Amino acid sequence: VPSEGGVLVRNLYLSVDPAQRGWASDRSNYLQPVAPGSVMRGLAVGIVVESLAPSIAVGSIVYGFFGWQDFAIAEADEILNCESHPELPVSAYGSILGITGLTAFLALEKLAHLGSGQTVLVTSAAGAVGSIVGQLARKAGCRTIGLAGDEHKLRLCTESFGYDVAVNYKAGPVGAALEAAVPEGIDVFFDNVGGPILDEALRRMRIGGRVIQCGTAATQNWDPAPRGPRAEREILTRRLTWSGFVIFDHRADFARAAAALSAAIRKGELRYLEDIESGIQCAPQALSNVYAGRNKGKKLIYIGQAV
Amino acid sequence: VPSEGGVLVRNLYLSVDPAQRGWASDRSNYLQPVAPGSVMRGLAVGIVVESLAPSIAVGSIVYGFFGWQDFAIAEADEILNCESHPELPVSAYGSILGITGLTAFLALEKLAHLGSGQTVLVTSAAGAVGSIVGQLARKAGCRTIGLAGDEHKLRLCTESFGYDVAVNYKAGPVGAALEAAVPEGIDVFFDNVGGPILDEALRRMRIGGRVIQCGTAATQNWDPAPRGPRAEREILTRRLTWSGFVIFDHRADFARAAAALSAAIRKGELRYLEDIESGIQCAPQALSNVYAGRNKGKKLIYIGQAV
Repeated sequence: VPSEGGVLVRNLYLSVDPAQRGWASDRSNYLQPVAPGSVMRGLAVGIVVESLAPSIAVGSIVYGFFGWQDFAIAEADEILNCESHPELPVSAYGSILGITGLTAFLALEKLAHLGSGQTVLVTSAAGAVGSIVGQLARKAGCRTIGLAGDEHKLRLCTESFGYDVAVNYKAGPVGAALEAAVPEGIDVFFDNVGGPILDEALRRMRIGGRVIQCGTAATQNWDPAPRGPRAEREILTRRLTWSGFVIFDHRADFARAAAALSAAIRKGELRYLEDIESGIQCAPQALSNVYAGRNKGKKLIYIGQAV
Repeated sequence: VPSEGGVLVRNLYLSVDPAQRGWASDRSNYLQPVAPGSVMRGLAVGIVVESLAPSIAVGSIVYGFFGWQDFAIAEADEILNCESHPELPVSAYGSILGITGLTAFLALEKLAHLGSGQTVLVTSAAGAVGSIVGQLARKAGCRTIGLAGDEHKLRLCTESFGYDVAVNYKAGPVGAALEAAVPEGIDVFFDNVGGPILDEALRRMRIGGRVIQCGTAATQNWDPAPRGPRAEREILTRRLTWSGFVIFDHRADFARAAAALSAAIRKGELRYLEDIESGIQCAPQALSNVYAGRNKGKKLIYIGQAV
């Protein structure tokens, strides 16, 4: 039975997100660690079966922190999206309208200060965030360079995701590859991975460039923190602004951003891919695969009846 | 003979600034390296003896890139301050009204987003920049913590420069000292040094904190860049904004900032120290001393007749 303002949700799609690896570690990062034996924290798309929330009708599709479970009691603050989007499939609440699409849209809007003719470099360029970043940056008149780790993803970058150039960061030294791909330097580095690619990119930023840190997927273990070349001289002499972006700080902007993303899809300006498996048994391995970059779009686990 | 728009200046005070160490290295940073055998690039305060600049009268006190020499032909773009400040001594053009005072004022104004009750940590806290930062942050209602390397400077910090607490970073492990001095975490880290102190401070920043990189005095050799613990996870999980500040990007703001600093001095709200030696022969050692933190205020070299 939900409490006042909450709902009972039947989950339909579980969202599999790289951040869950951090949530399941025994060190807190920006959220408390998930306790062993408790339900795995996670986002999901579900249908409301009971509602004590005045603005949410039974039958509504909702998206939020419902956990990796069939049914969830969701408090008001655990619901991230309860707007109606009948123009898109239900799974879209967990992909392009979910945190990955929202991260691409809002991190660019708030931190990139994109200008026409600027150069934007993106890591995990074919991923659920990077694929949207490339298209939005291209639409803003930027030159877009995507880094990815296999030929299939490189093709996706240039054929589907708005990248002018796609670079295989595994094919050789990253520094030399960037030197060739962005001889003019980088205005905006949208980074989902950190590590050695970040080191090389920082040293090729243009004066006044922006570095947006959205993830650190290249490093699996932060205890102790691995070492790398010091960054402060690059920050100073290039007058960089290096910012961290966590989507959950920006909930007040979700409805507006989702509406803008949906409109762009309907105008044919934006593509998104989903990579859907079926059944809760797939979830743990799916998380490991997502962290290793083996998904082919936003990873969702279908556990409900289609509605 | 000056060219159209320029002036001939008799230098009175040469400014000695840590950045000159970088300018004199054979690697460019944000300016081209000084060529061996040419006049050392440097700021100075002088008096105009010939003028082809319509707005600058003979006899005016000016401040700019006049070099380490007795007389300088200065082009219009080399003059940083030609406003009249008869309310302050001539040397003030090179200290509180010069790049160190301006850096403190403008870096705080543009990057710190100070709020009352916030905690501000400053390195080189008794230096020409840090001493002004402490006072301005205190005036904005912040809790101010200064790091310095000897007892004389620590006393200056708390007795003269607006610091609530002064910490001797040489007295033991910096991490433990910060843990004790800023248990609440840091909202703004105004950093003039980089290196291991920066590493410890980054790991004690509060969510949404701002790191302002104004110098990297802790590291003398950047070729190759020394290594340190990776920063990207701190940037991300703490949602930091780490920015580089170079004062010469902000020339349009100099006159306004200098007027505000002068007004604060006349109201008795702001103190500044100068450490003046006499004669060009003192200049090279003075630069080395400034870089090592052995000055007791803004270092100037007097080479003119008092006016």
